[in-house]
Amino acid sequence: MEFTVQHIADALGAEAAGNKDLIVCGASEPADATAQDLALAMSPKYGDALRQGQARVAIVWPGADWQSFGLEAAIFTPRPRMAMAGVTQMMDAGQGVPEGVHPAAVIDPSAIIEAGVSIGPLSVIGARARIGAGSVIGAHCYIGMEATVGQGTFLREMVSIGARAIIGDRFIGQPGTRIGSDGFSFVTPEVSGVENARKSLGDQGDAKAQSWMRIYSIGAVEIGDDVEIGANCTIDNGTIRNTYIGSGTKLDNLVHIGHNVRIGKDCLVCGQTGISGSVEVGNNVVFGGQCGVSDNIFVGDGVVAAGGSKILTNVPAGRVVMGYPAVKMETHTEIYKAQRRLPRLQRDVADLKKTVSK
Amino acid sequence: MEFTVQHIADALGAEAAGNKDLIVCGASEPADATAQDLALAMSPKYGDALRQGQARVAIVWPGADWQSFGLEAAIFTPRPRMAMAGVTQMMDAGQGVPEGVHPAAVIDPSAIIEAGVSIGPLSVIGARARIGAGSVIGAHCYIGMEATVGQGTFLREMVSIGARAIIGDRFIGQPGTRIGSDGFSFVTPEVSGVENARKSLGDQGDAKAQSWMRIYSIGAVEIGDDVEIGANCTIDNGTIRNTYIGSGTKLDNLVHIGHNVRIGKDCLVCGQTGISGSVEVGNNVVFGGQCGVSDNIFVGDGVVAAGGSKILTNVPAGRVVMGYPAVKMETHTEIYKAQRRLPRLQRDVADLKKTVSK
Amino acid sequence: MEFTVQHIADALGAEAAGNKDLIVCGASEPADATAQDLALAMSPKYGDALRQGQARVAIVWPGADWQSFGLEAAIFTPRPRMAMAGVTQMMDAGQGVPEGVHPAAVIDPSAIIEAGVSIGPLSVIGARARIGAGSVIGAHCYIGMEATVGQGTFLREMVSIGARAIIGDRFIGQPGTRIGSDGFSFVTPEVSGVENARKSLGDQGDAKAQSWMRIYSIGAVEIGDDVEIGANCTIDNGTIRNTYIGSGTKLDNLVHIGHNVRIGKDCLVCGQTGISGSVEVGNNVVFGGQCGVSDNIFVGDGVVAAGGSKILTNVPAGRVVMGYPAVKMETHTEIYKAQRRLPRLQRDVADLKKTVSK
Repeated sequence: MEFTVQHIADALGAEAAGNKDLIVCGASEPADATAQDLALAMSPKYGDALRQGQARVAIVWPGADWQSFGLEAAIFTPRPRMAMAGVTQMMDAGQGVPEGVHPAAVIDPSAIIEAGVSIGPLSVIGARARIGAGSVIGAHCYIGMEATVGQGTFLREMVSIGARAIIGDRFIGQPGTRIGSDGFSFVTPEVSGVENARKSLGDQGDAKAQSWMRIYSIGAVEIGDDVEIGANCTIDNGTIRNTYIGSGTKLDNLVHIGHNVRIGKDCLVCGQTGISGSVEVGNNVVFGGQCGVSDNIFVGDGVVAAGGSKILTNVPAGRVVMGYPAVKMETHTEIYKAQRRLPRLQRDVADLKKTVSK
Repeated sequence: MEFTVQHIADALGAEAAGNKDLIVCGASEPADATAQDLALAMSPKYGDALRQGQARVAIVWPGADWQSFGLEAAIFTPRPRMAMAGVTQMMDAGQGVPEGVHPAAVIDPSAIIEAGVSIGPLSVIGARARIGAGSVIGAHCYIGMEATVGQGTFLREMVSIGARAIIGDRFIGQPGTRIGSDGFSFVTPEVSGVENARKSLGDQGDAKAQSWMRIYSIGAVEIGDDVEIGANCTIDNGTIRNTYIGSGTKLDNLVHIGHNVRIGKDCLVCGQTGISGSVEVGNNVVFGGQCGVSDNIFVGDGVVAAGGSKILTNVPAGRVVMGYPAVKMETHTEIYKAQRRLPRLQRDVADLKKTVSK
Repeated sequence: MEFTVQHIADALGAEAAGNKDLIVCGASEPADATAQDLALAMSPKYGDALRQGQARVAIVWPGADWQSFGLEAAIFTPRPRMAMAGVTQMMDAGQGVPEGVHPAAVIDPSAIIEAGVSIGPLSVIGARARIGAGSVIGAHCYIGMEATVGQGTFLREMVSIGARAIIGDRFIGQPGTRIGSDGFSFVTPEVSGVENARKSLGDQGDAKAQSWMRIYSIGAVEIGDDVEIGANCTIDNGTIRNTYIGSGTKLDNLVHIGHNVRIGKDCLVCGQTGISGSVEVGNNVVFGGQCGVSDNIFVGDGVVAAGGSKILTNVPAGRVVMGYPAVKMETHTEIYKAQRRLPRLQRDVADLKKTVSK
């Protein structure tokens, strides 16, 4: 990879200063940069590191006195984090899936492979599956019977997609992600203790011990365009209708999405979050890491849940929540401060009792 | 798939009314139903949706005035959720694993494949492994050396089963599930800070920094009959004896079961729950999602743990628990309500102090 | 496997008593032991079990009157848990990966396979990858383009290692573990509600709904020597620099390590823990199960975090923490005790109010 400073600035819609013909071959943190690297020094805290490293050109923070750091050129960008999107996309060396369909792939004769598709070694494409034009399927992937993936899909290694899944364009699947596992849905012949306990908030009643009958998942998974699903996630099939994930939504690693869940557009779901069956999530919702959502509730548009939040009841649109159980962030902060003061409060009350009883 | 109304009613042990010869080809939510679908309208809340959809026949709630919804036939069932088990099993179109042993499977000559087994492409069956009659092994599965799986097993794609695992009949393994990973067990040459901190509840003492020595898992995993393990779960081998999961127990996705754990019969373990090493779990226990259980404790028969519970001490049989640390549900509710009132309580105490000091 | 008592004692650096020529073929818990097993009875609580089982030799606790349990020989060890490391390593029957490179493995001609390497069936080794001498790569593994694994590596089945990963010697990878998934890093064109909410602790301001732009991971993963990574873990690539895991560190199952994280030496990370992007973890840190760490903070050397801790702010070296949010263990205990007494405290304050208002 070789880029001139001017080329990079153009791609980012940014301003360049100094020697715009300077050539770089990669990007680097400022302290680690060689003379061939573009240093990424988007905030003043990188000043010293810039001097330490060997970079001759850097993306710098607005107003930086770039020449004072020994640079020959600089790129200025109004929203540095946004520039990261452009630079890293330009510099990405990829995973090296070989072009074309590898001879060790196992492709059902009834599958439809559109133009310009690459399929890595030891991948399996099932009966009547369809792979959209220009897609890259890594090694060891599995595309189930009658599943469809849209154009420009990129699957890393060991992704599996169950039968009848419907996936839009430009989908990215990280290693080991599971689309279309069966929903976790069981029923006892008679009312169970857990059904009673949920209704009564704690009392199992006189339900007897029983075995669990399986409810099969005859729905599948349906995913919009521009969705990314992280490594080792699990997205369950719906029971009757499809489980649904809206366009533009991104899931981090080890996220669990239960059967029948519907997630809106442009959501971010951070690592190890779990969303139970039949939850409705709006658009532009952000879940921090390790959040949990109880089954059969809704989370409105634009909700932000801090890491570790366990959401047990409906959350109206726009709310910022935290805690177990999750409450409004400001309520959580107020409760938390009061807890820290609790031991002192108890001493105060003990003193008061003494004073009053005199 | 084609079924008459009568056929479905018979299979469910339910009553049919109206045109019992009507034929359906699938099941659907009431609003989405075509004229060929059986609508699943098990509660009165589906009334409007029934009118919206095109279904000519539905499973309806007890006492429903089915003709008023424009239906030609109806099926009545006393416990609707239970009917879901039967209907979805009938209507399940499956994953389409081709019959027989796929030529691209790699099967050790010493493995024993019983009658009527299907093995998908690119699956590996190790030395002296045994696959029970009528089992279906999906694509990309791995059955380790000397492992046995019982009759009627169904493995989805990319399931792995380690050496010497012993699995009963009718086992279901969801995609990417891991049976027989090595236990997480390490020891330092001298007493470590974490050993001290656990004993003293917080004080690491004067333990020095040390490296960890590996304790190998020479035990395996043993699983009863009718067990289902979810997608991307991890079930660790025992250290000396086998880790054990009892008959009829069902695990959701991304569940972690540590080494030496023994789980009883007919338990439900919801998504992302983790059970640490050497825990004993009784029969008919239900763990909600994202529960955690500390190592070396027991959870008695029939315990129900609400989602997110972190169980740090033994739980007697029959108890319903919640919280971190988990306590009886009613204690949790009481503490939680008190917390919500804490800020007010602090103001009350401040007022009292003023009044009393006058 | 056959070992004399003397052989075992020598290997453990322990003392033997009685018939040192006695031969054992395996190890067992005392109650389950056959006459050919070495019973592991490292504490007096196993006394009764020793009498129940058939073992003729046992590893016993210091000072045990071994002859009274009907044993013909005994092995004494000063730190019994440490002896477990040696015994289980001796007795481990392994996973049976066949020697040599399996004909059904797919190996790029430009890959470098050093001496004495075994590669299981259906594994893929990418272009210019390097596998260190004496390594054992299980079935269904994937080693990406230009990745290197050191000498004496052992990968269980279905491990994937992304492009350009650099892994040291004696690495152990459990089934389904994912090294080098892409980091979870997205940015909106303008400031987002979640950025505002993090700064203001709860207020999203007037940010509008936007779509997410992807920041690519051009860094990789770098791992020291003697590291073990559990089943179905996910270790993300760094954004610009490499994500780093230091020598001697061990990860349990289903652990998530975000992009740019740096973990020091000899840490233990228990199951289902998640460490967000750009966290710095020192040496000899222990995370209990299901811990979480917020992004961009540090956790100092020798910190111990109890199971379920959610670490939201920097933790200084040597501290023992617990809770959500995590605080010093003793603070947590104090708060928790006060919470349990809260309902009573509220009654006390109500009584005081009545008394005072009279």
